[in-house]
Amino acid sequence: MVTVKFGSNRQITFGGNEFAVLAGPCAVESRDQFTAAAQGVKKAGASMLRGGIHKMRTNPDSFQGLGNGAFSFINEVKNEVGLPFVSEITDARQVGDMLAVVDMFQVGSRNMYNYSLLKELGRTQTPVLLKRGFSATVEEWLLAADYIVKGGNENVVLCERGVRTFEPTTRNTLDLNSVAYVKAHSSFPVIVDPSHGTGRPELIKPLSLAAAALGADGIMVEVHPNPKQSLSDAFQALSFEQFDDIMVDVEKVLSALGRKRLSN
Amino acid sequence: MVTVKFGSNRQITFGGNEFAVLAGPCAVESRDQFTAAAQGVKKAGASMLRGGIHKMRTNPDSFQGLGNGAFSFINEVKNEVGLPFVSEITDARQVGDMLAVVDMFQVGSRNMYNYSLLKELGRTQTPVLLKRGFSATVEEWLLAADYIVKGGNENVVLCERGVRTFEPTTRNTLDLNSVAYVKAHSSFPVIVDPSHGTGRPELIKPLSLAAAALGADGIMVEVHPNPKQSLSDAFQALSFEQFDDIMVDVEKVLSALGRKRLSN
Amino acid sequence: MVTVKFGSNRQITFGGNEFAVLAGPCAVESRDQFTAAAQGVKKAGASMLRGGIHKMRTNPDSFQGLGNGAFSFINEVKNEVGLPFVSEITDARQVGDMLAVVDMFQVGSRNMYNYSLLKELGRTQTPVLLKRGFSATVEEWLLAADYIVKGGNENVVLCERGVRTFEPTTRNTLDLNSVAYVKAHSSFPVIVDPSHGTGRPELIKPLSLAAAALGADGIMVEVHPNPKQSLSDAFQALSFEQFDDIMVDVEKVLSALGRKRLSN
Amino acid sequence: MVTVKFGSNRQITFGGNEFAVLAGPCAVESRDQFTAAAQGVKKAGASMLRGGIHKMRTNPDSFQGLGNGAFSFINEVKNEVGLPFVSEITDARQVGDMLAVVDMFQVGSRNMYNYSLLKELGRTQTPVLLKRGFSATVEEWLLAADYIVKGGNENVVLCERGVRTFEPTTRNTLDLNSVAYVKAHSSFPVIVDPSHGTGRPELIKPLSLAAAALGADGIMVEVHPNPKQSLSDAFQALSFEQFDDIMVDVEKVLSALGRKRLSN
Repeated sequence: MVTVKFGSNRQITFGGNEFAVLAGPCAVESRDQFTAAAQGVKKAGASMLRGGIHKMRTNPDSFQGLGNGAFSFINEVKNEVGLPFVSEITDARQVGDMLAVVDMFQVGSRNMYNYSLLKELGRTQTPVLLKRGFSATVEEWLLAADYIVKGGNENVVLCERGVRTFEPTTRNTLDLNSVAYVKAHSSFPVIVDPSHGTGRPELIKPLSLAAAALGADGIMVEVHPNPKQSLSDAFQALSFEQFDDIMVDVEKVLSALGRKRLSN
Repeated sequence: MVTVKFGSNRQITFGGNEFAVLAGPCAVESRDQFTAAAQGVKKAGASMLRGGIHKMRTNPDSFQGLGNGAFSFINEVKNEVGLPFVSEITDARQVGDMLAVVDMFQVGSRNMYNYSLLKELGRTQTPVLLKRGFSATVEEWLLAADYIVKGGNENVVLCERGVRTFEPTTRNTLDLNSVAYVKAHSSFPVIVDPSHGTGRPELIKPLSLAAAALGADGIMVEVHPNPKQSLSDAFQALSFEQFDDIMVDVEKVLSALGRKRLSN
Repeated sequence: MVTVKFGSNRQITFGGNEFAVLAGPCAVESRDQFTAAAQGVKKAGASMLRGGIHKMRTNPDSFQGLGNGAFSFINEVKNEVGLPFVSEITDARQVGDMLAVVDMFQVGSRNMYNYSLLKELGRTQTPVLLKRGFSATVEEWLLAADYIVKGGNENVVLCERGVRTFEPTTRNTLDLNSVAYVKAHSSFPVIVDPSHGTGRPELIKPLSLAAAALGADGIMVEVHPNPKQSLSDAFQALSFEQFDDIMVDVEKVLSALGRKRLSN
Repeated sequence: MVTVKFGSNRQITFGGNEFAVLAGPCAVESRDQFTAAAQGVKKAGASMLRGGIHKMRTNPDSFQGLGNGAFSFINEVKNEVGLPFVSEITDARQVGDMLAVVDMFQVGSRNMYNYSLLKELGRTQTPVLLKRGFSATVEEWLLAADYIVKGGNENVVLCERGVRTFEPTTRNTLDLNSVAYVKAHSSFPVIVDPSHGTGRPELIKPLSLAAAALGADGIMVEVHPNPKQSLSDAFQALSFEQFDDIMVDVEKVLSALGRKRLSN
């Protein structure tokens, strides 16, 4: 089990009987947008807040995130709403700075093989959410987690976010086999990202329910106060109403199987 | 919705609120094996019996199925246990013969692009279970269903059975995105085959639960009275105990979401 | 080595020091179109004529080929130009009829796993050009060839035509590794189809040269008298001028390595 | 065209009529091993020396390279044999140090999406050999090159090294379509790595010849004085004899098409 501590004496735990829901915008865009997102997902029952500060963009001309300038208001917002915060680290040199704002580091899909970054995170005790590379085998994913563990940091949570296949209908092919395999054959907690895993808003609910039924330790979902105005991945962001609806049915599935959602 | 009729006046329906469970051995091996399998899956609550008569084998020296010689005892067994029967057709020239034994034709993954076979099945009114080709896009899968429908047979049920990717841990990568997409964007019922979709017995239960939570119209599972002695795909066949256990939890998930299993 | 006989006493051989060039339209569309195509590719030095009679189309509403009605004029045209003819068989029941017009059967990519068809072809002595399934492993491809050989027909030539990957820029990913592997580890002749393998006219020449340098036993290229008016795969058909240009440089590469093109 | 300068006033150029051959061991293991490798590949006609100092290893317990301690003897060896040197950079913080030893930086497949590293390299004027990510689309690869160019460094050479597919026979599937596409649609020079691209020694020669015939600007080949004792990727390293044999036939193919090898 992996514990994420935040605030003066609060914490949430991944890998037990409770199901974590990480939610928030793809990118932190402004204090207003982030405040609205945080309040909305808190109200719907999310257990953790997500939001990108440093974005990995395929195109060098795309929006690259607000960077360190956003730290102060992010800290204010997360304290106001009372949720721990996870955000992606994209360069080993960001570790020191980001410790001022994150309760958990996220390693994105394109950095799963960035062993310099993994080793650097192994030197901290801050929990790490390690996304699967979009063409990484399950074995490579587990070995990437080992880079962090062998560095001295055992607080690793895995995140399946879809793999790259021949199929063009969905942005990625969400591989729930991998999640069931990791649960059966390793001791790492593992969550599912149906937003990137499908890239289609109408598929996020069914795949979230599947993740809950399957035995995953949580989900991470992109939610935006105004999805159409999202600066990145606008096509896959959910509104608060859509997110609420998912939370209700996820609760039903968990309950039927003797589990429950992490309270917030 | 697609209705499969059997016996004097019985029927089951795919695509409504009820969840179908198709179970039985990969291949029909003998009267004793098939009788035992049929009784076991009936007892656990299966709604339909499966079993291969003509097997598609990559290696020309592998067991190719019992062929037409098995028809008489298969008919006796399915009538005794009172379950409809689905079996794979591997050649357009088998249609006439197989009508004597099947209540539903199965088109296997390697035949999804066999348009001659699909057209032939379009000339019957017998329901068809159309597996997705293991590298077929969702669009190609739906167009293959159209070959049957345009021939005059609208009784098509789709079956996701995993796609081929770079991942070696599981036999295939089960693509539940495709199932959610088909439910959202077509009117065909769609079921899931977690046996071929994972190729690992320990993953069949979690993926069956995921299929139920996701909104699939059913699952198809390989069950064998003595899995270790199975003549084909022995590594992925479930025992009756394992199958029972899945059925209990599938029922819980369905019930939580306002659905139920097809009675048998 | 595999020998294709035609006319009264002529023949060509695959698998020796000579390099075969199979060329012609994707589909036989009319006597005029086929005559023009045959004369054009003969003049440029092709050793064999290709052209589809029964087309495999993903969409049931697409042009499905002229069928048996085209046999008489095809026979006249191939005799006039003096080239052997290869065409795709899409149903085991076509074998008898097609023997009247083909000198070599082609099994298309979507039928590589159609074992009924392969067994039927194994009962003839007519050479078979067996295309690799677009998601078939090399081992499966060689086992499919074994279905024909074990039926009694050893005259099998393999054809690499590209595999399905995540890459959208090209229609398929031509796998020349597989060709080099087959040459090193089996005794089957193997040719390359850069038309389907790339799906882009500007890439057909460089990949044809690569095939020649690599040690392939030939290439199969789509050539049309008027590419823009082609009824199928128009986007990848070459004009006579483009085909001529390829032939000249293929000859140079072969000659540098001590080989030559099959005369016609 | 991209020029690599070395020594007092020597240089080689990628992207013109000449074909570059980069050769050397997967990893620099010792002064003796590296000296022998450098002399062997120089004698056979290589135009550039390769060798890993910082290795990217999937398994954290595998040999990670000699690191900076090897710089002094590498400089001595490359000056003695008179060849420019390319080596992989695995962390943006290595740029300053490595400038003391490399004439060209190599960005490995797993770092193609490491935009921090690409931006850092954009701030130098040292040429960069940018390998394609093993699941990167051609468009993503070209956009990664843009990260370097937009940073101010236009000296980018691309390297195709195979993509990840379902095929287990070869380590990767070498995608020569991508090379032809890059030559037709961009102005970047592009070379081919048949060692990683096949992972099988018996396939390296045919794929090297294919690369030469196709119009690639060069190849990069792993050569080791004693392949069986190689500390990494031993299974794909060539002996000097095997490398010599390739060079002779590459020369023949180039010459037939009016090109030649870069002298050394």
